[in-house]
Amino acid sequence: MAGTGPKLALVPGEPAGVGPELCVRLAQRPRDDCTLTAFGDAAALRAAADALRLPLQLLEESAVATRPGDLPLREFPNSAPSVFGQTSPRNAAAVIAALDAASDACLHGEFAGLVTGPMHKAAINAGGFAYTGTTERLAERAGCDVVMMLANDVVRVALATTHLALREVPDAITRESLERTLRITDAALRRDFGIARPTIAVLGLNPHAGEAGLLGREEIETIEPVLAALRDEGFALVGALPADTAFLPQKLVGFDAVLAMYHDQGLPTLKYSGFERAVNLTLGLPYPRVAVDHGTALDLAGKGLADPSSLFAAVETCARIATARAALS
Amino acid sequence: MAGTGPKLALVPGEPAGVGPELCVRLAQRPRDDCTLTAFGDAAALRAAADALRLPLQLLEESAVATRPGDLPLREFPNSAPSVFGQTSPRNAAAVIAALDAASDACLHGEFAGLVTGPMHKAAINAGGFAYTGTTERLAERAGCDVVMMLANDVVRVALATTHLALREVPDAITRESLERTLRITDAALRRDFGIARPTIAVLGLNPHAGEAGLLGREEIETIEPVLAALRDEGFALVGALPADTAFLPQKLVGFDAVLAMYHDQGLPTLKYSGFERAVNLTLGLPYPRVAVDHGTALDLAGKGLADPSSLFAAVETCARIATARAALS
Repeated sequence: MAGTGPKLALVPGEPAGVGPELCVRLAQRPRDDCTLTAFGDAAALRAAADALRLPLQLLEESAVATRPGDLPLREFPNSAPSVFGQTSPRNAAAVIAALDAASDACLHGEFAGLVTGPMHKAAINAGGFAYTGTTERLAERAGCDVVMMLANDVVRVALATTHLALREVPDAITRESLERTLRITDAALRRDFGIARPTIAVLGLNPHAGEAGLLGREEIETIEPVLAALRDEGFALVGALPADTAFLPQKLVGFDAVLAMYHDQGLPTLKYSGFERAVNLTLGLPYPRVAVDHGTALDLAGKGLADPSSLFAAVETCARIATARAALS
Repeated sequence: MAGTGPKLALVPGEPAGVGPELCVRLAQRPRDDCTLTAFGDAAALRAAADALRLPLQLLEESAVATRPGDLPLREFPNSAPSVFGQTSPRNAAAVIAALDAASDACLHGEFAGLVTGPMHKAAINAGGFAYTGTTERLAERAGCDVVMMLANDVVRVALATTHLALREVPDAITRESLERTLRITDAALRRDFGIARPTIAVLGLNPHAGEAGLLGREEIETIEPVLAALRDEGFALVGALPADTAFLPQKLVGFDAVLAMYHDQGLPTLKYSGFERAVNLTLGLPYPRVAVDHGTALDLAGKGLADPSSLFAAVETCARIATARAALS
């Protein structure tokens, strides 16, 4: 069944982290849901395969993988030799070039989806690139608004703001931005997840969702008016809900997604409830993009101890969404 | 075994909510770990007992409970008849008077601990009282700094800030306030929970704990210096940790408590991981105070559907801590 399904671009990410070895482990399994082409440095992948004593054959980028360890590659060579656990600012350019090329290949329709491993923000910034996150970079390159969503088998959490200092969060959420976020999230749940009328639970910004204005007025002045307007259009929106009780298991079963106002309001519970199989989706791009939900884990790199479940789930999810989109088009 | 153990004051809280019926259910069980005296309105307790068809005998406040339904009471009569599910601002004065009297009785050593049911912030404020939370009111009355901690069988979460609009959180956390919070939390884990050298995980304020300054500088400028100074004194502090991964189950087993910087960073995961048996503790008061972790649940009041587990756990926890303190003194 090799060579079937949508073509996905695979970016291993930070070469000193666990990304390369997770890609090597991914390449050991034959798959019939998609084909994968890696965008990255050959030496880092080979070093990871050697460290894990796994077979790896790097093929030219349009080749078909048939054996365990076959991995088609578009190469972006690192400037410095990569050492497990030690990032180098000299490799930031190759990491970013691979990411940008994979993004562009998806935008041009050459690939049907993008799967990314963990990046290292500080190393990329140290290399001279202003980078707050892959989600943000992909959005800028595509010139569109996006929503970051983390999902596992228990809950999907979308974020109204992502990698932003906490003190900047309240003013970053406007009626316009919140409306955009809800439209993108609702559309993705319908198109990519096949949910006919998604129910989205929207959290308040303040503790107890502001408790009728006693603990902040953003719910009254920003969030509730947006919810009311979208409900008039037929959106199924619950909220604004207090964050501390919105995630109770008996409530979650009624929600197709939870929209948290910021990173640390939504993600701790998602990761507690099922970290290993959680993935990070970017909604709103012209192509599906799914990432691992974990970081570079520099301390584990090259030891074969990193759990590949999130990358495996990311590839499966991206393949499923790409197939669903192809069927709709 | 009636009449043994520390004397605890029990405040049912908002009369229109589930507090009175939970107290009636509590009074059905004989106990040998403490004695309880309720501080509240007699009619609301009787109405709850009638609605639940449970026996209730309200005794004078220093009487000894011997039969199911016996409940010693210091009465604070409501001004308006209480109706299940409908708060009245006219009853705010009685609710607050009962809370203040119970607080004072503990401060004066007349009672060895305080257990409180759910209050309704908006109803109390509508009645003319500036009230942001019971924790804050007890601290003010006792004239000391306190820390709010929620705890269940999985995790204890202490909060550096409590009921505060999100935009006020960053400036509310100073080196001084954070140091106080950590000293109070560490002392309570030693004295009240019997942990010889508590390990406290301290979360960052910003996503990814600021990611080395890229996403905010409060970790570098405020949090880390405090942790360094207290480590020099022997405190076992981990962090500043990114909130989204600090609650992973395999990490939690190594922590005696997690200090979250604000309400919605710490409490969603705590409540997801075990809401029913969670309790709310106030650390730093001269007496132990434990509350339910839930609200007034106005929609459930008078129906006998409210789960009493949190109140039961609160009484057990308060009795255990009061007994431990008595043994130390």
